[in-house]
Amino acid sequence: MTSANTPPPRGKFITFEGGEGVGKTTNVQWCADWLMERGLEVMVTREPGGTPIAELIRNKLLKAHHAESMVPMAELLLVFAARVQHLEAVILPALSQGTWVLCDRFTDSTIAYQGFGRGLDLGSIETLKNLAQGTLEPDCTLLLDAPVDVGMARARGRTAISGEDIDRFETEQMAFFERVRDGFQALAATQARFVTLDATQSLDDIQSELAIRLSLLSGL
Amino acid sequence: MTSANTPPPRGKFITFEGGEGVGKTTNVQWCADWLMERGLEVMVTREPGGTPIAELIRNKLLKAHHAESMVPMAELLLVFAARVQHLEAVILPALSQGTWVLCDRFTDSTIAYQGFGRGLDLGSIETLKNLAQGTLEPDCTLLLDAPVDVGMARARGRTAISGEDIDRFETEQMAFFERVRDGFQALAATQARFVTLDATQSLDDIQSELAIRLSLLSGL
Repeated sequence: MTSANTPPPRGKFITFEGGEGVGKTTNVQWCADWLMERGLEVMVTREPGGTPIAELIRNKLLKAHHAESMVPMAELLLVFAARVQHLEAVILPALSQGTWVLCDRFTDSTIAYQGFGRGLDLGSIETLKNLAQGTLEPDCTLLLDAPVDVGMARARGRTAISGEDIDRFETEQMAFFERVRDGFQALAATQARFVTLDATQSLDDIQSELAIRLSLLSGL
Repeated sequence: MTSANTPPPRGKFITFEGGEGVGKTTNVQWCADWLMERGLEVMVTREPGGTPIAELIRNKLLKAHHAESMVPMAELLLVFAARVQHLEAVILPALSQGTWVLCDRFTDSTIAYQGFGRGLDLGSIETLKNLAQGTLEPDCTLLLDAPVDVGMARARGRTAISGEDIDRFETEQMAFFERVRDGFQALAATQARFVTLDATQSLDDIQSELAIRLSLLSGL
């Protein structure tokens, strides 16, 4: 029996990671629906962004075209500025109120893209991670993994259909995306919070796997 | 005899620090004139800012009013993002071309204001300093020091005359500025690059002292 004054159990923090075109956005929303149908409070968010200040950093600085080229370390500091704002102002308060937070990309993307992909010093990224989040890690990280050519073909199709701006990252080379995939796989190999899903499966098969994971995490 | 192909000697990097109303801007310009009159290339710049990207960070994020309150660590990461952009894109290229760079505020202001003034962890600031600038330090830091009430009165007068926006920092309390002054004095006490000038002297007396320092630094 639960008293009205008992705080709700802390929500779980689930991040979705992977390269381009692996189906993160679709599956984040599917997971949110699965949890909400079972009565849980759920928040869906994304990085970089997720608060007005973090979205400003995303739109005015990270995604904008500048006459001068941005120094890689400046970009990294901006990514973590947006992240710590998102974490402290949105994610942690939601978790402490019992809301589950599903986040489309988080620090693992910084390690995979900026670190493995673009060769920024992994130690510097780790230092910034410690400053921004201390020992906090997601309760579970769902890595959607597919060969680079499969993901790229899907991402290109999506861009053509939606007419959305081609993300800067999506214009870069295959070799870059191979390094990014290697980065995600290296993280998944060493950290127990990761669950790797084969994103070349049918959506039904992926979502059957997701349902099993969500059931284990929620006890529902 | 110098060959046309010999690179010019590296310029010197001089920072100007101190609380509100101590006369930094006036004296930065006076020093620039002194050096230029003696044939040196000089660039005057300021922090936060000094490049288009850094000015965007200053104006859209650090100086803007936001509906949500900014997390202190996010602000710190933004300050260092602007700084590393300024350093790598502007200051270091200028120094390597032989230009002297005079900068109105630099990392010591972050330590004094955010660290001593607002109580942010000095170790975190030091970590970010190391990421942003490695072992680079100014060749000389000119600290203009005055009792807080003297500086505050001057800063208020300037605000009234110019009608410029009251800086967020200038609206804060005397006790805060006392801590900031203590911070600058603590830095000056431990680092040989600092020269502390009594900013309550007449401008003529301050500038006589500045001329001596510039002469020592330039050999002119």
